[in-house]
Order: sequence, then structure tokens, then C-alpha cells
Amino acid sequence: MNARRVAYTAPRTLALEAGTAAEPPPGHVAIDVAYTGICGTDLHIFHGSMDARVDPPQVIGHEMSGRVAQAAPDVTGWAAGDNVTVMPLVPCGQCPACRAGHRHICHHLVFLGIDAAGSLQSRWTVPADTLVRLPEGLPLDRAALTEPTAVAVHDVRRAELRDGEKALVVGGGPIGLLIAVVARRGGADLLLVEPDPYRRGIAGSLGLATLDPATADTAEAVADWTGGAGADVAFEVSGAAAGVTTAIDALATRGRLVQVAIHPAPREVSLHRFFWRELTLVGARLYHREDFETAVGLIADGHIPAESLISRIEPIDRAAQAFEALEAGAGVMKVLIDCQSEAGADAR
Amino acid sequence: MNARRVAYTAPRTLALEAGTAAEPPPGHVAIDVAYTGICGTDLHIFHGSMDARVDPPQVIGHEMSGRVAQAAPDVTGWAAGDNVTVMPLVPCGQCPACRAGHRHICHHLVFLGIDAAGSLQSRWTVPADTLVRLPEGLPLDRAALTEPTAVAVHDVRRAELRDGEKALVVGGGPIGLLIAVVARRGGADLLLVEPDPYRRGIAGSLGLATLDPATADTAEAVADWTGGAGADVAFEVSGAAAGVTTAIDALATRGRLVQVAIHPAPREVSLHRFFWRELTLVGARLYHREDFETAVGLIADGHIPAESLISRIEPIDRAAQAFEALEAGAGVMKVLIDCQSEAGADAR
Ligand SMILES: [Zn+2]
Ligand SMILES: [Zn+2]
Repeated sequence: MNARRVAYTAPRTLALEAGTAAEPPPGHVAIDVAYTGICGTDLHIFHGSMDARVDPPQVIGHEMSGRVAQAAPDVTGWAAGDNVTVMPLVPCGQCPACRAGHRHICHHLVFLGIDAAGSLQSRWTVPADTLVRLPEGLPLDRAALTEPTAVAVHDVRRAELRDGEKALVVGGGPIGLLIAVVARRGGADLLLVEPDPYRRGIAGSLGLATLDPATADTAEAVADWTGGAGADVAFEVSGAAAGVTTAIDALATRGRLVQVAIHPAPREVSLHRFFWRELTLVGARLYHREDFETAVGLIADGHIPAESLISRIEPIDRAAQAFEALEAGAGVMKVLIDCQSEAGADAR
Repeated sequence: MNARRVAYTAPRTLALEAGTAAEPPPGHVAIDVAYTGICGTDLHIFHGSMDARVDPPQVIGHEMSGRVAQAAPDVTGWAAGDNVTVMPLVPCGQCPACRAGHRHICHHLVFLGIDAAGSLQSRWTVPADTLVRLPEGLPLDRAALTEPTAVAVHDVRRAELRDGEKALVVGGGPIGLLIAVVARRGGADLLLVEPDPYRRGIAGSLGLATLDPATADTAEAVADWTGGAGADVAFEVSGAAAGVTTAIDALATRGRLVQVAIHPAPREVSLHRFFWRELTLVGARLYHREDFETAVGLIADGHIPAESLISRIEPIDRAAQAFEALEAGAGVMKVLIDCQSEAGADAR
């Protein structure tokens, strides 16, 4: 077996290194990683934007699927060969957030793949309680979409969407698209705003109504769509200043804005409109185990359009090129890295 | 009877005019106004800041108490001499907000005292369904605090405050003070941030903990107060950019910010913190009838510190001077205008 791993070593530099296959320590499980998806956070790390938090060399990656290779002797419930994904959160259990029951946003959260080694390696060792079981027969490439799907499930749950409500999604990347699909399944009527024609095309092929903010007047389109009332919910997934304004302006009286994207800098927000229309802004970050399990179920039942989301699968030795292609952005949604050692490379 | 009224005629100009005592049209009731409180919105009108909305000459004022003088023949349930206050909202009943049950924030709301004649006159004629009954024996000067108290009741209700939660109030004017008193009565633990020593003194005399943001580090004080967790709720009542930041920085994970003050310009908001701590921002505007009735009950039962809130009472012919004194700001909380015709001027 050729264990390999991809480490972030410096801005714009990923190193392919020989991996290790040490015995898992007590309470841990070693996983043969099948696939690791690359997400926006991984790209931020690659750019060097998260150097204050990431300590190189660091194996990154946290959207994954795989099989249990070996469980530590004290671990029960898991056996070699079990298909699994990992909820990559290790909360402290002690801080005010943990004590209040919000362990997923622990003040000292260790996020595997950012604050500790991630899944961009053929053999990954993680705490046993981060494992989430995958149903037999669920292809592992699809299963690698569990983590971003759990994000979408959490975001939709934070919106408290009710059947028949109208929801605007601002930003049509993988998370925006997943939010739209999950929200639609919950009974909402969706409109997705996205400037990139490739992404709009994918959304359209899934039967979602889309809008190009460069050519359409979003406020006018939303007014038409909602009979002048405005949207009940807007998901801000763009991360752009203009996306925030678009989302706020689209909302009906008592509408809810779910803040999904990361805005590193403060944004100008019309607090007057929040006051005037009694709007609500809800921050949404990560997921609970319940969201993760819901996501596995949605994927297993075929409700997540994996073939539209997975643009391509690259071997682990082409990880750096995959990051560069994603940076360029056009014509690509989600890229998976095949992390299997050569012997297991047909597991897909 | 010497009917009089005070009209806003141009920026910084109030005219004392002879009032009229016409018969109330169908569906309306004529009220002998006892007292009218002056609020921040009245000051904004006086400054000319609301000329886009206010059509001079306009009788302003909307915080009031009085007695029914005459009900139109088709009006039932009201008789001359009934003590009343007015919920000064006339919703259209047709717009999306009204149809969704949010009549208090109707898209075409007529607010009496801004969009139509207000209560700064000795005889005021209003739609019968805006009347709210006052208990016999409730002094009418205290009853003139019903409208701002209803604002506070609504704001606290929007916060969904639970017993034992810690709530920060940023801004200690009449509304901030009323929010603090109402929230404390609901079981919350309060801290009020206010730079003005006179206002802090009044809050302190009511047993409220206060903080001067000019000399204390609010974030540090909140951390001490909450054992490092942060406040469960913050009410932004200051209208200042710094107040928004203070409120957001003070919040615990999953904390709620209630936006009460008017911010005419967009404010820089750390959306990242909303994301990171899964915070919620809730806009709160005006009140429902239920809030108004709760407010009457709180005043009647002595839970609202009227003597601390009412700084002084001025006769109607000194309304312009009262506005000027309020503008200066220092050493004054709420000023009431005695609107009674001379014959009834001892009604207090
Ligand atoms: Zn914690
Ligand atoms: Zn309306």
C-alpha cells in the first residue's frame, strides 16, 4: 500500500508526501479515505488567507467518505470495512457554547482539516465519535457530498422554512445549489441568483428558476414572483457586499435572511430596513449530528443531484492542479480528490 | 372652551393655532386630549428631517391620554367621559403585510401624528378602532406613557426573553429605560449602557445596573457579568454606529440583537460574527394592540416608574419651548404637554 497525503505548506503550495499508517490511539479510528471534496475553505487555506489559524505543514480537507481500516481496541460499534463519513468537529465540552448545547459552534472548536489534520490523505485517524455511518451500497463518491449537504440542511433548518414559502438563494455554487435543492424538497418555492452562466445552467437543469443579477433587476423580478410581497426567506451564500443588499432588499415584511457565506470584512447593512419591515437575520454555521444524518439520508435516497454537483474526480497526485483549476472557477462545481491507495482505486 | 392645536409648519417652527371642535364623522370619535408626550420622532419632525413624509401644516404628537368628548352616532362602545388612549396606527388592510397579519407594519400605514393629524391639540378626532380603554382612576399624565411603554413591551416580546436571561440595553433614554424595566419584570437580568450621567442616575435610582461606555470597557464588563459567555439579548436603542458594535460584541453564542433604534444610514455590521456565533438580529417596530393593552396594565398596576420618566409637564402654549429644551437634551427624560382647554386644566 502506498499511503499518501497532501499537506498545505505555504501560500499556494501543496506538498504530496508519503503517508503513515500508525495504529489508532485509544478512542480513535483509522479510515481508508476514498474521496475528499475541495471546498471554499480549502481554497482560502490554499491562498494563505487562513494562516493565522492553519499551522503548516497541515493536511487539509474535510468533505470525505471512506471505510474503516482499524478501530482502537477500546472503540465499540465500528469494524474494518464499515463505510463511513466524518463530522469533522471536535468541541471542547467546557465553554459557554458547549454548556449551552451549541457544541457545533464551540468557542474552542477543533475543526479537522483546518485546526488539525484533514482527510486529504489515504489513511486518516479521527476520534471515533466523529464517525457517521453510511448505508451499504451508497457509492462513496456521492457520500463525499455529505458534509456540504449537512451545511445546507442546517441552513434550511435555521430558516424555519414552511411549506409554500418563497425563498431566494443568492449565490449558486455548491452550497447555494444544495440549499436550493434541500429547501425545495421542504416545500419551498425557489429562485436562485447567480452571475455565472455555467452554474445557472446546472441549476436550470435541476428545474430551479434562476436569475442573472447582471442583466435582470432582482428587486423587480422578486416583486413579480411574489406578487409584490417579497421573499419569505433569503439565503446569502455569495459572500459579496452586493449579495447582502440583494438579499435584504428582496425580503417581505417579517422576512428572514440566513447568513451562510463568510464576510471577512464588516458590511454596510440597512438596519433601517430590518426595523421598518421587522426582518430577522440569522447566522448559520456548520451543522449538528442530526443535520449530518439527514444529509446522509437525502444522498442515499437520491434527492441530492450528485452527478450535477461533482464536476470531476482527480487522483491525489493531481491535488495541486485541482486547486488551481477550482481557483480559475469557470465551468466547475465540486471537485473530488480520489484518496485511495492504488490497490483500492476502483472502489468508486 | 378655548380649543387649541400645535402645528408643525416648517423646520424648527411650531404654530399655536385655534383648534376646531367639529362633529366626528361616521366611525370616528372626538377626544378631549389631556396630555401628549414628545418623543424622538416628534423631534425629528421638528428638525425638518421628516419633511419627505410630513405635509405641513401638520398637527403632530401621538403619545397621549384623554377623555371621549363625542362619538359619532354609528360608533358603539364609547361614551363621552370615557378615559382613553389611542393606538395611532391606521393600516390599509390590503397590502402584503396586512394580509400576512402584520397590520402594525402595513406598507401603507397611516401613523396619526406623522401622516395625519396628531394629538398635540385640545380636541382630536380619530377612527373609533384606534381607541384603547384606560381604567377608571388611572391618572391621565401616567396614561400618556402608554404608547412608549407599548413599544418596549413589543421589543421585549420580539426578543423572546426567557426568565433568568441576561439582557444588555444600549441607550438609556425613555425607550431604553422602559425596555429595561419591562424586561426585568419578565425575569431578565439587566445591564444598561448610557453615556449621559443624568439618564444613568435615573436608571440607577430604579435599581438598574448601568455602565458608562466612555469610561468602562463594555466588552470586559459584559464578560465579567456573564462569566465569559456574553449576553443572551442586546437591545440597540442608541441609534449610534458605536451602539451597534457594542451590542453585537456583547452577545453570547446564539444571542439575539433586537434593533429598536432608527439608523437612517446603513451601518457596518460584522456579518462574520453573526455567522460565527450563529447570532440573530430582529427588527422591532411599533406594537400590536395586545402590546398596547399590556402597557396599560403595567402602568395601571404601578410597574412603570412614571415619576422618574416624566421630567416635566408644560402647557400647550409653551410647546415650542418644550421642544427646544428637549433638543438640548441634558437633564430631561420625557416631557408631556398639557393639552387641556383652560376649563379642564385641573384634570391631572
Ligand atoms: Zn466548547
Ligand atoms: Zn397594509
